[in-house]
Amino acid sequence: MFESAEIGHRIDKATWDEQVPTLRAELLAAQYELKQRAGFRVLILINGIEGAGKGETIRLLNEWLDPRLVQVHAFVDATDDEQRYPAARRFWQDLPPRGRMGVFFGNWYSQLITLTVRGKIEQAQLDQAIGKVERFERMLCDEGTLLFKFWFHLGKAEFKQRIDEQGDDPLQHWRASPLDWHKGKTYSKVLTVAEHLLRQTSRDYAPWYVLDGSDANYRSLTVGRMLLQGLRARLDQQQPARAATHAAPLAVAQDGRRLLNELDLSQTLSKSDYKKQLQQEQQRLAALVQNKAFRTHGLVAVFEGNDAAGKGGAIRRVSAALDPRQYQIIPVAAPTDEELAQPYLWRFWRHVPGHGSFTLFDRSWYGRVLVERVEGFCSEADWLRAYNEINDFEQDLTEHGLVVVKFWLSIDQETQLARFRERENVPYKRFKITEDDWRNRDKWPQYVEAVSDMVDRTSTREAPWTLVEANDKRFARVKVLRTINDQLEQRLSK
Amino acid sequence: MFESAEIGHRIDKATWDEQVPTLRAELLAAQYELKQRAGFRVLILINGIEGAGKGETIRLLNEWLDPRLVQVHAFVDATDDEQRYPAARRFWQDLPPRGRMGVFFGNWYSQLITLTVRGKIEQAQLDQAIGKVERFERMLCDEGTLLFKFWFHLGKAEFKQRIDEQGDDPLQHWRASPLDWHKGKTYSKVLTVAEHLLRQTSRDYAPWYVLDGSDANYRSLTVGRMLLQGLRARLDQQQPARAATHAAPLAVAQDGRRLLNELDLSQTLSKSDYKKQLQQEQQRLAALVQNKAFRTHGLVAVFEGNDAAGKGGAIRRVSAALDPRQYQIIPVAAPTDEELAQPYLWRFWRHVPGHGSFTLFDRSWYGRVLVERVEGFCSEADWLRAYNEINDFEQDLTEHGLVVVKFWLSIDQETQLARFRERENVPYKRFKITEDDWRNRDKWPQYVEAVSDMVDRTSTREAPWTLVEANDKRFARVKVLRTINDQLEQRLSK
Repeated sequence: MFESAEIGHRIDKATWDEQVPTLRAELLAAQYELKQRAGFRVLILINGIEGAGKGETIRLLNEWLDPRLVQVHAFVDATDDEQRYPAARRFWQDLPPRGRMGVFFGNWYSQLITLTVRGKIEQAQLDQAIGKVERFERMLCDEGTLLFKFWFHLGKAEFKQRIDEQGDDPLQHWRASPLDWHKGKTYSKVLTVAEHLLRQTSRDYAPWYVLDGSDANYRSLTVGRMLLQGLRARLDQQQPARAATHAAPLAVAQDGRRLLNELDLSQTLSKSDYKKQLQQEQQRLAALVQNKAFRTHGLVAVFEGNDAAGKGGAIRRVSAALDPRQYQIIPVAAPTDEELAQPYLWRFWRHVPGHGSFTLFDRSWYGRVLVERVEGFCSEADWLRAYNEINDFEQDLTEHGLVVVKFWLSIDQETQLARFRERENVPYKRFKITEDDWRNRDKWPQYVEAVSDMVDRTSTREAPWTLVEANDKRFARVKVLRTINDQLEQRLSK
Repeated sequence: MFESAEIGHRIDKATWDEQVPTLRAELLAAQYELKQRAGFRVLILINGIEGAGKGETIRLLNEWLDPRLVQVHAFVDATDDEQRYPAARRFWQDLPPRGRMGVFFGNWYSQLITLTVRGKIEQAQLDQAIGKVERFERMLCDEGTLLFKFWFHLGKAEFKQRIDEQGDDPLQHWRASPLDWHKGKTYSKVLTVAEHLLRQTSRDYAPWYVLDGSDANYRSLTVGRMLLQGLRARLDQQQPARAATHAAPLAVAQDGRRLLNELDLSQTLSKSDYKKQLQQEQQRLAALVQNKAFRTHGLVAVFEGNDAAGKGGAIRRVSAALDPRQYQIIPVAAPTDEELAQPYLWRFWRHVPGHGSFTLFDRSWYGRVLVERVEGFCSEADWLRAYNEINDFEQDLTEHGLVVVKFWLSIDQETQLARFRERENVPYKRFKITEDDWRNRDKWPQYVEAVSDMVDRTSTREAPWTLVEANDKRFARVKVLRTINDQLEQRLSK
């Protein structure tokens, strides 16, 4: 795997001087075209052997490229504050938007290499992590990312010479690698892990490029040219690729019965029972989030439901129990320009709570498999793969100790009609009813189908859906609060 | 994930009687169209809860479908003979060809569930295995497979009732599940694993379909209709999907230097040294394959190289040391019709040796990234993903204890010309030279590029490439034998 990078590639000064000006001009031109068309983003991952010139090459690239259109991120050890959040959040936050370029140092690969070399994880755990990396990178590519993965290589002899030259020079201390490269075995340990990593994650949509780092001219010209060729090829691509999705429809039920229609919507709660139970559950919630165990947990509550099903009211009953410094309510509406320039889940990642916090999503990432599916706002391939991406996302959350609770508030068509009418007639409620609401109502059967598929494909043991019978608002609110409490209690006591 | 399958779906007899005749007719029609066009194959995986009617449904399907065009395979515990081969071989062998349908019971999922429920593998190992399953299924789909994955479900109460009814009835003993479903905890253990498995492996190109197994009419009609809808949709697809491959070219070297051109082809061996060393190495090999440790190992030797580089001669010098019952030489030529109807690697899987055996491949699966790439016999996307598929394939072999040794026999253009001329002039060698050889020779630079990429992307620690300087045949033969011995010795002593 590293054979070609050990034959001592060189570019002499004359060739360098002759070729660099054209390369720079063409790179800039490609960069502007990328910005103008903004059809995709470019993400460059930099990894490799210590002393193989990663930093130097990137500094040079920064000189060649328009710095307003490219950002370099070095992910060193997570700060205390960052550790409150799922590890993937840092990478999500710094993704370049469409039209821009990003360079990631100290990325997910560096972290896996460090952990494995230090013996913190075993082979099976490494492979488990590799599976996640593969899914993440595929998502990035499906979401319009041109991903470059460069491995800066040095043969063993060359490496030894570099590391000896480096010696104890304090000027070199900025090379803050988490690994002790002066130790005799580090090099070969890194190479063993890297070979496995590169082999498993070099895929047709995101291959690794191993390059010889021994000559400064060679490595910089190589990275520059690879970038240019890749960028140009993608910019000149006529026809976008189309994912091979399964041909069969998703819904299985052949007797017309859907989960949603099975709910007993006649359930109610009397006013006095409601008052008592609501207070009980609110006190229970307040106690749970004060619990010491909550400091290494957090809560994500997702509220979806029919229009006028009472999401807002339910959310307010939950938040009433909480210290305002502890929670955030995120109403999800149409994405901003900035959000549209990012992979779909980016705008939800920004609101993921840290340990000890609580986020209530009023509508959520499920929009993709609900309204976007039904209204045709995205392609079939997009919403089909969203089930996987959402499951992966929620797994990131639950593995970090976040409790994910998801509600579908369900009402029947008559109740909805009555509430719509009420909204039209009560002046201070009029803002709550729009043309869209009436339009959605016409697509009732499609929503029933979409919701059933959603529950079937994303209700998991770790992040289950709860269907809430919401014809009676009191019943619904208590059920929501109680479910949150039950699930929180269960997870905190683990 | 199982919510919809627990609401008690039913199909009454009247509906059944009314709908089945049409369904059967349409299924048969789709099956014939599939056969005629032979554009893809259909593979149906059947998994689920004991008692949910898997077997019954398949028997019915067999009745409805043309049995000449569909084959059912039940993979029970591997026999002693089967255990000599990598586990994946059984599945490869029984894949349906294009135009046909196959049903797999006791497939890779059943095996993973059994292992996990029995506590033989941990979560991390399960996820490691899931990664392999994902790659395998993606390969199948990329290679023209419409994959159906059915999970036959029963709610807990329903399951209990079934299993009690089943009781100790000896007529039920053919239900040879490897799990003891009568044990109280089996059901919920299976469900926990299944939920994780289904979630991780339900992908847009191969989603799972969970169906309610409690009513015989419902489950059979459902499977029949899902098959029909999926088949029809795929048959009616106008435009085939196109994989999103990376836009940049593969080769990194920007100074025109390629691995192959770095070889010192002037190395020779005198006649007397050759005789002595050849005999030495042959005796060493004979001893190694008699070694007791070889009974749990095996050897796969791949010979690739320039035309007239001496592959045949080298192979004969290796086989001369071996007992003919122990080895097989597989010359790889154009694929047969039967082989063309299968995924690319199928024709190599058939010749994978078992423990204690030895296969010498005269040309190999690398044809895809060599001749097929250079001549354009397959699409760019096909040969790009082949690197991954080949690495996965070889990993299956090495994990089973097979030692994989790969040779590229390299000569320069002058030597090739001299050998071509000799072949033309010596009557008994004339059959060895064809038009193709001259044509390949014109593409020398493209082959240098393809070989370098191949080595860079498929030379791994476990299955490394050895470049053999073959201008001098004696030197080459001894190097080949010595490399095999060294690698075999190293692996057997582990």
